[in-house]
Amino acid sequence: MRTSIATVSLSGSLTEKLTAAARAGFDGVEIFENDLLASPLTPEDIRARCADLGLTVDLYQPMRDVEAVPGDEFDRNLRRARHKFELMRRLGADTVLVCSSVSPQAVDDDALAAEQLSRLADLARDFGIRVAYEALAWGRHVSTYDHAWRIVESAGHPALGTCLDSFHILSRGSDPKGIEDIPGEKIFFLQLADAPLLAMDVLQWSRHYRCFPGQGGFDVAGLVRHVLRTGYEGPLSLEVFNDVFRQAEAGPTAVDARRSLLVLQEAVGRAALPGPVVPTGVAFAELVTPDAEPLTTLLGALGFTRTARHRGKPVALWEQGDARILVNTGPAVRRDGTQLAAIGLESPDPAAAARRAEALLAPVLPRRRAPEDAPLDAVAAPDGTELFFCATGRPGLPDWRADFEDTGAAPAATGLRIDHLALTQPWHHFDEAALFHHGVLGLHAQESVDVADPYGLLRSRAVTNADGSVRIALTVGPAPTDDTVHAQHIALATDDVVASARRFRAAGGSLLPVPANYYDDLAARFEFADGELETYRDLGILYDRDAQGVFRHCYTRTVGRVFLELVQRDDGYRGYGAANAPVRLAAQHAVRALTGG
Amino acid sequence: MRTSIATVSLSGSLTEKLTAAARAGFDGVEIFENDLLASPLTPEDIRARCADLGLTVDLYQPMRDVEAVPGDEFDRNLRRARHKFELMRRLGADTVLVCSSVSPQAVDDDALAAEQLSRLADLARDFGIRVAYEALAWGRHVSTYDHAWRIVESAGHPALGTCLDSFHILSRGSDPKGIEDIPGEKIFFLQLADAPLLAMDVLQWSRHYRCFPGQGGFDVAGLVRHVLRTGYEGPLSLEVFNDVFRQAEAGPTAVDARRSLLVLQEAVGRAALPGPVVPTGVAFAELVTPDAEPLTTLLGALGFTRTARHRGKPVALWEQGDARILVNTGPAVRRDGTQLAAIGLESPDPAAAARRAEALLAPVLPRRRAPEDAPLDAVAAPDGTELFFCATGRPGLPDWRADFEDTGAAPAATGLRIDHLALTQPWHHFDEAALFHHGVLGLHAQESVDVADPYGLLRSRAVTNADGSVRIALTVGPAPTDDTVHAQHIALATDDVVASARRFRAAGGSLLPVPANYYDDLAARFEFADGELETYRDLGILYDRDAQGVFRHCYTRTVGRVFLELVQRDDGYRGYGAANAPVRLAAQHAVRALTGG
Repeated sequence: MRTSIATVSLSGSLTEKLTAAARAGFDGVEIFENDLLASPLTPEDIRARCADLGLTVDLYQPMRDVEAVPGDEFDRNLRRARHKFELMRRLGADTVLVCSSVSPQAVDDDALAAEQLSRLADLARDFGIRVAYEALAWGRHVSTYDHAWRIVESAGHPALGTCLDSFHILSRGSDPKGIEDIPGEKIFFLQLADAPLLAMDVLQWSRHYRCFPGQGGFDVAGLVRHVLRTGYEGPLSLEVFNDVFRQAEAGPTAVDARRSLLVLQEAVGRAALPGPVVPTGVAFAELVTPDAEPLTTLLGALGFTRTARHRGKPVALWEQGDARILVNTGPAVRRDGTQLAAIGLESPDPAAAARRAEALLAPVLPRRRAPEDAPLDAVAAPDGTELFFCATGRPGLPDWRADFEDTGAAPAATGLRIDHLALTQPWHHFDEAALFHHGVLGLHAQESVDVADPYGLLRSRAVTNADGSVRIALTVGPAPTDDTVHAQHIALATDDVVASARRFRAAGGSLLPVPANYYDDLAARFEFADGELETYRDLGILYDRDAQGVFRHCYTRTVGRVFLELVQRDDGYRGYGAANAPVRLAAQHAVRALTGG
Repeated sequence: MRTSIATVSLSGSLTEKLTAAARAGFDGVEIFENDLLASPLTPEDIRARCADLGLTVDLYQPMRDVEAVPGDEFDRNLRRARHKFELMRRLGADTVLVCSSVSPQAVDDDALAAEQLSRLADLARDFGIRVAYEALAWGRHVSTYDHAWRIVESAGHPALGTCLDSFHILSRGSDPKGIEDIPGEKIFFLQLADAPLLAMDVLQWSRHYRCFPGQGGFDVAGLVRHVLRTGYEGPLSLEVFNDVFRQAEAGPTAVDARRSLLVLQEAVGRAALPGPVVPTGVAFAELVTPDAEPLTTLLGALGFTRTARHRGKPVALWEQGDARILVNTGPAVRRDGTQLAAIGLESPDPAAAARRAEALLAPVLPRRRAPEDAPLDAVAAPDGTELFFCATGRPGLPDWRADFEDTGAAPAATGLRIDHLALTQPWHHFDEAALFHHGVLGLHAQESVDVADPYGLLRSRAVTNADGSVRIALTVGPAPTDDTVHAQHIALATDDVVASARRFRAAGGSLLPVPANYYDDLAARFEFADGELETYRDLGILYDRDAQGVFRHCYTRTVGRVFLELVQRDDGYRGYGAANAPVRLAAQHAVRALTGG
């Protein structure tokens, strides 16, 4: 199916928007009137620019407050429409969107609306233009898609059809099944947007919080299935008003948009993508650092051993039980201090995983880093983190481990494993990140939670595979500038956090100090065995409980932008200790204030 | 009356919050439990810190999900309460807030609620503590203040009273008049918050969008009047959850908070502030610049003449009709390029205006800049703009004009005057700015409007005096970092914008080019006399109409952060051409992209 995007969904000048849409692979655009008005390009220039970019102009929009008004008012509207149809002819646009009226002058008279829309369609036909009439969710008298369709149907004009918009339909809770009663050739256009499920004024919701399909709570794919059953053959077009996208660079937003449509097309059986290959574990986490010493001291105290080194690069492999951490001191792409730069994901079929990622517009990274390296399938996530699809120790598949030569040291037996990885997301790409990990990796996105940092609210959302052997927590700061302020971390699972913490401390490790007041509160909220709480207090272990089980966790000090966490999950606890995050964040701020870090 | 603020209303560590509250002049604080948990200070330390700062601990909050639950659950709640009462004794807090339960275990049984709250109050009394029971707007069974009061009344326990919260009462549309039926001594606490009038889920509204009284749409003063009639003698306490305040520096937020309470206290007759002295005109606008040449070329082309120079400083007075602009090339406090640094406001009583500003916590600026200068009353607005209260040419009052000596040149006769001044506000202080201009200057705040810039949404709000002779437009960018991106401007009113624009162009001035598409749209929307639209198109004049009248306006190029606007208001047009702002902003971005500025 053809895909299209409304220029209002992207940031910048009209030229920037068109370029971004074309580069992301869209077939066409909806030209939003205000973008045209503000552009120094003439309509002919815009038409030529679109043609050069391989874009069709699928829709001109919106025309407002046209129908069901007194005669003299309608005459003025026809005059206005004639101007716009002339403009559309210059622009090469053959379909115009007419939104149901919000004018106080409009009357509740479907017959009048049909008659005036017919007259508008008469005029449009003279220009070779089709009129697509759409019900705004907050239209004065027409606010549901079936009502708009009844008016179009009774008008019975060949140049008059309806436009469906998933936001306007689903935000009102209308049943989209009724779409199947509309003949497909009378659906002149289909606009798609998702939105988080908010209880708020629908106009504000629509203007500020729309998002791309798969990023919100609507069943957009379900709606599209109904539309396709009508025989609709027009484009799938995204129309998203979103305060964040307005500020974000147009290029990445357009890629995010197109990826959301690809996932949607796959869901409705109209795109043949390589199928998802869900990762089955974490092969390694890779830290880059300009100075390995603080990190390796930390890893040593956690019981990690340097078991191997890369044959051609300054990368060391540190192991502890099943947890593997690479420490890379080579020139990294994003070298601003110590950070979590890459994740190795154990994959049942690394090449197939990479093909799917590429089909979903993930930047593919070079397969071989050096001539003698094993070929590795890898892509970049929206936040720049490199994702390697690995087949550790599986015969017949390229193994990243083959690039490393053993040091002779064996990993300690007291086994840790990687429980989860926490990545800080760029402010403008939080919704994109969850869709990426879901669409590309087949991970399930858990609910988004707010976390109170002393200096602003963070939002956090985890993506996981079914058995929890891959868990990635995505966190975004309170403002666009904060994406480097908050730390990333690697959480290591242990069967006995108290023993692990004690070993760490005995080995010279230093845990994040937790305020005594926190433990007084724990004592008020829960009952503990004798001495248990004192142990937690002594070590700085935090405690949480959910409906399933218990979570105990503690934190190392931060090195650069990275810290490590020791966690013990019991009885199927599913979360990440979010209830304790404000205390942890405040403690980290306090340490930073003391150390000036 | 005593004033208090909840620590949750301010950003930072508990220490930072307490310091900010004390410096702003609050008498006490509500300690929010999470702030205490996250603090490394012991309860005794916090008590001592508060005492040192002259703050009382007026409330400990919140205690949740206590009442109307099965017996074993209530026993656990009592155990938890005992821990908290012990903590409060250490903290020196004698009142605890208990919110109506949201627990799924709570039952709809007022008698049980009253009995269990009585038992809680029994325990509290042993610790010398009072229990203030409050209805959350989203409480499971108790969500209105009168319901909470009925339960408290039926319990009849001396250590049990109610807590009123203006947000919970007004967000539900409850009639606050019923408050007068509660005996004042049973109102144990009063929490105040305002909020913008949003139609949204009340819990999200409460947690993210509360603001200080006078910054939202609630009649908080009306509610307080009802409370005072009961004989309530406790503090007025602010409890505001707000995503922006969480990120803003605590110090300025605390000042903003305290100012809002002062204005509120005045409104309910409990504060004797010097009365407002509303300005009657704009005496001058002052631009600072490291390089006067581009500005003075611009002013020259607009018909301004350099009529006087300051006797002791590198400041020149430029005049055109009634418009006066100072160009200051001396070392300015905030010298980062050319900007609008000060406004002279014509005041009926400059000294009284300054006294009110000072009483409302505006920083007072030194009265004399140099020994020989005329004494000038001036304060700083929240955005740092200096506001001078002036008595231009009024005998017996200090006159700023006396510091200037004439150059001999006379201002041009073709009179301009200052129509409005547009100031860019720091992101964290937009609500504060409107309250400041209203409270301190007695200006009326008009409705807030959204304006689509190509790179994000701006919010804009104007403050004016009754006859429109003082108009200041306050604009804030889409993100915390954008406060220096968008330009400030001075709008000059003319009776004939076409003639003014032509004179400007003839004198070598260059107007902002407006896209041709904009004029095609005007032609579609309005009917013009022959040649009228061509004139606008030729000059780059924008056109708007409201219910009252017509607005025509055009823009100069930008110098540093400042540009000028020529405006013609006809027939009582009240706005600022907001409908045209997206086109103007896009045109300014296009110029900047071309010039690399």
